[in-house]
Amino acid sequence: MGVTPVIFAAGETGEWTIDRILAVAGEPLAPAARLARIEGAVTAPPRARWVLRGTRSNERYTTRPERDELRRVQPELGRAASTEAVLIPISKSDAWWDLPQDERRAIFEARSGHVTKGLGALPAVARRLYHGRDLGAEFDFLTWFEFAPEERARFDDLVGELRRTEEWRYVVREVELRLRRDP
Amino acid sequence: MGVTPVIFAAGETGEWTIDRILAVAGEPLAPAARLARIEGAVTAPPRARWVLRGTRSNERYTTRPERDELRRVQPELGRAASTEAVLIPISKSDAWWDLPQDERRAIFEARSGHVTKGLGALPAVARRLYHGRDLGAEFDFLTWFEFAPEERARFDDLVGELRRTEEWRYVVREVELRLRRDP
Repeated sequence: MGVTPVIFAAGETGEWTIDRILAVAGEPLAPAARLARIEGAVTAPPRARWVLRGTRSNERYTTRPERDELRRVQPELGRAASTEAVLIPISKSDAWWDLPQDERRAIFEARSGHVTKGLGALPAVARRLYHGRDLGAEFDFLTWFEFAPEERARFDDLVGELRRTEEWRYVVREVELRLRRDP
Repeated sequence: MGVTPVIFAAGETGEWTIDRILAVAGEPLAPAARLARIEGAVTAPPRARWVLRGTRSNERYTTRPERDELRRVQPELGRAASTEAVLIPISKSDAWWDLPQDERRAIFEARSGHVTKGLGALPAVARRLYHGRDLGAEFDFLTWFEFAPEERARFDDLVGELRRTEEWRYVVREVELRLRRDP
């Protein structure tokens, strides 16, 4: 249960081919050919075009029943059939971070159904969250999704629903990277 | 409301004279003559004997009424009469960090009265919390306290009470540094 640092490095190398980089809100990220997700790394690989940093850390909002259900149904990363992935870096506004914990939680789940929506896409869409804010990183969150090509519509529905929530009104920067790897 | 990094650097220089370093639980910190608290810094000053890193970040447990009350009564740091300070670096166990948010909150306030006890010492004891865990820093938390010498007993009562709480059973490492500066 210690924390694990992560680096996402874009450039000419990496397991994942970048098909598309979409700036959903705010500044985009520069185009690149490939992306590597490197857990345990804290320094950028040489010749990276750009690098995003984060930390796999403790959960901030989930209750015991939600957390138990998530752990019961969520799959590991790296399934052979998961040849598609999406990385969504996000930053939220000062107004969000200035809210007390109970009000952030109420927006996150009671009014936006963040956990419930995510559970609806499990186990098809595997997910891992990294935190960047305390690091002073470029994004507050880096969320990584993996799924089989035939589950892509399920993923699209999930992010479409989340973007229509009250929680997403606090998102000031969001980029979506569509990725694939060889089977 | 952005995050602010902090470095505590111990050595031969710094505003604060170190009177005593007490290892309350786990490994101690090495003796040093003086301590500097440097907000905004991310790299260690040259010739520091040791350095602790953290981030001033958003609150993790307080509700709206608690947060409003804290902001109403808590003083700024740097009051002229506050010639004493205490730095308490703490790390909590894996068992703590593996608890879901609702159970950590219940231990923190409902069963340990962390906010209530802290409010009882305000405005005499000014306090600032820094987070280190996501950074992979040496301690999960660095808490800084400032007060006038005649308020020392109030501070001692506060930390004594907190150390007897259920929350403190999850503290696996704790060091207490007693500091003073010239008026």
